[in-house]
Amino acid sequence: MTENLLYLNLRSKVEISKKDFDFFLSFTKTKTVLKGDFFLLEGNPCHYLAFILDGGLVNYSIDAKGEKHVLNIASKNYWTTDLNSFFTALPSTYYIEALADTRVILISKDSFEEACLAIPVLERFFRLLFQKGYASMMARLTNVQSESAEFRYLKLLKDQPIIFKIAPQYYIASYLGIKPQSLSRIRKKITKID
Amino acid sequence: MTENLLYLNLRSKVEISKKDFDFFLSFTKTKTVLKGDFFLLEGNPCHYLAFILDGGLVNYSIDAKGEKHVLNIASKNYWTTDLNSFFTALPSTYYIEALADTRVILISKDSFEEACLAIPVLERFFRLLFQKGYASMMARLTNVQSESAEFRYLKLLKDQPIIFKIAPQYYIASYLGIKPQSLSRIRKKITKID
Repeated sequence: MTENLLYLNLRSKVEISKKDFDFFLSFTKTKTVLKGDFFLLEGNPCHYLAFILDGGLVNYSIDAKGEKHVLNIASKNYWTTDLNSFFTALPSTYYIEALADTRVILISKDSFEEACLAIPVLERFFRLLFQKGYASMMARLTNVQSESAEFRYLKLLKDQPIIFKIAPQYYIASYLGIKPQSLSRIRKKITKID
Repeated sequence: MTENLLYLNLRSKVEISKKDFDFFLSFTKTKTVLKGDFFLLEGNPCHYLAFILDGGLVNYSIDAKGEKHVLNIASKNYWTTDLNSFFTALPSTYYIEALADTRVILISKDSFEEACLAIPVLERFFRLLFQKGYASMMARLTNVQSESAEFRYLKLLKDQPIIFKIAPQYYIASYLGIKPQSLSRIRKKITKID
């Protein structure tokens, strides 16, 4: 059952019964986003929170000079969305693009709020998910401010090795806040050390 | 009643009864951190989540070269902590210092979890608080990647004008990711435009 991954993801943080899980599933739908297609386009509101069953989604903005800036790369077993747009219904400032054919479980804002009210353990799950995401984002900002690109590269490799299989070098470099040439240098240096 | 500010803060996101609020308060304690004293020292676990009744707290790390990097400046009516250390009990990588004599309402990790289980509307409040914080932190990282220092300065001035009254220029510049000289230049330029 493809939804089993989602069940295990919820169970990693809360004790949810099979009955509550099935009820939660009734609020969702599944979809495949083909490689290169967009889950979200800048200027549109982000209608869904997505859980990735397989594949990967990259979340980036494009600045006034046309340069892409990768905020996030999410792979199998991760949740993703434009959180601000999802909760406020305001137009998004991001693109979310599929890096491979990507199967997702989707929940809309209204269904999300209804499910959280109907299933208290779900409210708890998302409190725990968002607090962890918030803490990770704080750590990432601190790392951008005060750690070397090599440190950030090694951290990403340890935390999400799968990203290196699905994302082009250009996106990984942008996620790390460096030029592709700098990423190549770091990889060569580390290969030599190994 | 000094706790009234906290009651209004909760009510801005959820419908909490006076009875539930009083029950929540029974899990907390109040404390004053004097100007220049530390709410948290790097290397210690962060035992408390703090709600600021008055004053301000700055959260920064110090890198290997001894340079301070400001992650956050929180003033009256804001929540602050080292979220990662608070929830994992791991030693913090941050300092949290009082910018003025600062009165806070504190809740420990164990009391926090107990209160969330006992008062479901509180679980909801913190889900909403953390999701907003997470979204703000994403926007901040994107702004660091792709917006000018002047844009970030004007955004901070709009979002948290009180910070400019309580924090030294050095901390504000660090929060914006620029040198104090650059902050002076931006302020002079904007004063001329006004």
